[in-house]
Amino acid sequence: MSTSDIFQFEIQARDGKARAGLFQTPHGVLQTPVFAPVGTQATVKAVTPAQLSELGASLVLANTYHLYLRPGDQLVAEMGGLHSFMQWNGPLLTDSGGFQVFSLNEIRKVDDDGVTFKSHIDGSMHRFTPESSIAIQENLGADIIMAFDECAPPYDREYIQRAMQRTHAWAERCMAAKTRPDQALFGIVQGGVFADLRSESARFISSLGFPGHAIGGLSVGETKGEMNEMLEEVNEILPEDRPRYLMGVGSPEDLVNGVLRGVDIFDCVLPTRLARHQAAMTRTGRMNLMNAGYAKDPRPIDETCACYTCRTFTRAYLRHLIVAKEMLASTLVSIHNLHTLLQLMRDLRQAIFEGRLDTFAAEFLQQYTL
Amino acid sequence: MSTSDIFQFEIQARDGKARAGLFQTPHGVLQTPVFAPVGTQATVKAVTPAQLSELGASLVLANTYHLYLRPGDQLVAEMGGLHSFMQWNGPLLTDSGGFQVFSLNEIRKVDDDGVTFKSHIDGSMHRFTPESSIAIQENLGADIIMAFDECAPPYDREYIQRAMQRTHAWAERCMAAKTRPDQALFGIVQGGVFADLRSESARFISSLGFPGHAIGGLSVGETKGEMNEMLEEVNEILPEDRPRYLMGVGSPEDLVNGVLRGVDIFDCVLPTRLARHQAAMTRTGRMNLMNAGYAKDPRPIDETCACYTCRTFTRAYLRHLIVAKEMLASTLVSIHNLHTLLQLMRDLRQAIFEGRLDTFAAEFLQQYTL
Repeated sequence: MSTSDIFQFEIQARDGKARAGLFQTPHGVLQTPVFAPVGTQATVKAVTPAQLSELGASLVLANTYHLYLRPGDQLVAEMGGLHSFMQWNGPLLTDSGGFQVFSLNEIRKVDDDGVTFKSHIDGSMHRFTPESSIAIQENLGADIIMAFDECAPPYDREYIQRAMQRTHAWAERCMAAKTRPDQALFGIVQGGVFADLRSESARFISSLGFPGHAIGGLSVGETKGEMNEMLEEVNEILPEDRPRYLMGVGSPEDLVNGVLRGVDIFDCVLPTRLARHQAAMTRTGRMNLMNAGYAKDPRPIDETCACYTCRTFTRAYLRHLIVAKEMLASTLVSIHNLHTLLQLMRDLRQAIFEGRLDTFAAEFLQQYTL
Repeated sequence: MSTSDIFQFEIQARDGKARAGLFQTPHGVLQTPVFAPVGTQATVKAVTPAQLSELGASLVLANTYHLYLRPGDQLVAEMGGLHSFMQWNGPLLTDSGGFQVFSLNEIRKVDDDGVTFKSHIDGSMHRFTPESSIAIQENLGADIIMAFDECAPPYDREYIQRAMQRTHAWAERCMAAKTRPDQALFGIVQGGVFADLRSESARFISSLGFPGHAIGGLSVGETKGEMNEMLEEVNEILPEDRPRYLMGVGSPEDLVNGVLRGVDIFDCVLPTRLARHQAAMTRTGRMNLMNAGYAKDPRPIDETCACYTCRTFTRAYLRHLIVAKEMLASTLVSIHNLHTLLQLMRDLRQAIFEGRLDTFAAEFLQQYTL
């Protein structure tokens, strides 16, 4: 079967710019809009695959940069690929390594051919090119893989323009380098906070015929207003009949705003990272569970939440685990935070089917405290 | 109902000195011999209560010293007691705090009335007496609670004798202080590695009429041979019709040797502590999962093991998690190690019923590498 036969995207319902759809992958169907928990090093931190399944997670993201360095994509391939290695049997997505190289690495050298960078683990020197990024992602074997792109800071127009041109050239090289039909390669739109550059990038990337499109370089320091504006600009141009993926986003309000503007796929480390820093995500905002006011609080984190953590444990107990530096705190709060975002996505999808997304979003954003 | 009505101990089968029994508690029946995972700070480290239940754990131990200091026994009582606080709805056991005060605390002052010690958390001064230990354990509300004892190093006869006398006096005071009928208070036998002191202690403690007896001050630096000898000495004297609990033990070979000598209950931090130090426990010995030889090993930790970890993950993946310092490693190896000990206890129990404990134990010890 060809890639386009496998990765079919069907839009089931629309509500304004928003869409509810089904995206077929070799490891199952994604019900969009969908949020992907992040498993940077082939594990969603502190959560087992069994717990992820119980949460109703469908898509999981892993990071090419980290897995290339450790344990090595070759080793993952020898162990049967990433699905088998980490025992996540649902759909997987890998990023290209570009974002990590450009954001995590202090020492790097970019040229038109690729990027040379220093490992954060042992200081050894490495090089990514569009071709090597695809080769690594083919070794990892995720269902959705990403074109290698250059991420620039959001406001430096001259640098952004140069990085965008490079991203375009690299997108074509990634497409040419790809060999596996059972992986869908998504192109990435760049362009910072500049509407004209975003339009240009969306037009160019759309013209290449990718089975899906990603919007990169957002949620990297620009304002929420700028992000929303760029989403509107780009989604005017990206083809309706392919899934749209907003990379590295986000917070509950960003998910709502993204869905409202026609985004189908999201990923973010936020729920698990916040959990490791004692913050619980709820429908009304964040709670710092270290707060002394919770010491004897017999309520769950969120009385309306159906997750294992909220069905089982009190705020008082969770606060105790955090104060006592017990690992179980990270597990239990991660489960809750992931549930909050996954349930929000299910509710957004339902609201699209029922044609009441605007009302749902307005009510949500009204009660949500940043 | 009186304590003796609630906490009935029925011996179902004997094989040599070993016994298979049922011990009734307000939170369920223990099938003995039984191993109790340790949840020092009201959590078995890195494992959820749901995972513990799935493992078939029945009894869980929590530490009075730690919970008294944090979050405080008063707070636990206000939250409905330890079962409710940590959401372990099976039988719970708390130690008296004695062992921790004597082993963890550098600064302490013992007198005949009690012990003054310094908190390891904030350096504040505290005092335990037999009466306060019982009051704290009544606040915590475990099913089985322990008399406050003085633990001496195993070879200092003079100190051991003095500590034993104090332990005896304190046992009587604990019994007098106890008020809750829904808790079984166990007396503790001390006496170091000296057979005559152990006998004296076992006789005295037995004479007080506790519903169960513990053997303390072992596995604290003496040899395995000395431990086994003391167990034989003490179990000759402790009444047959009450459960016997060997505190802080142990390793697989210690469990086998203890059961052979008539012990019914064990607890130890070993399985979860080893798991956090990348060591897997198996029926044949320990494996250091960091070993480079496991980097591409597609086998589970133990091909004969039925735990979630072994049913799901390779050694290669577990090694990767450990090398990458991922919390999930602690969870998955803890699950495996706990399963190894819990399954060993189930197998020992079955061997007693089938009258083949000697063969089982001999085969086990023959193939087990220390």
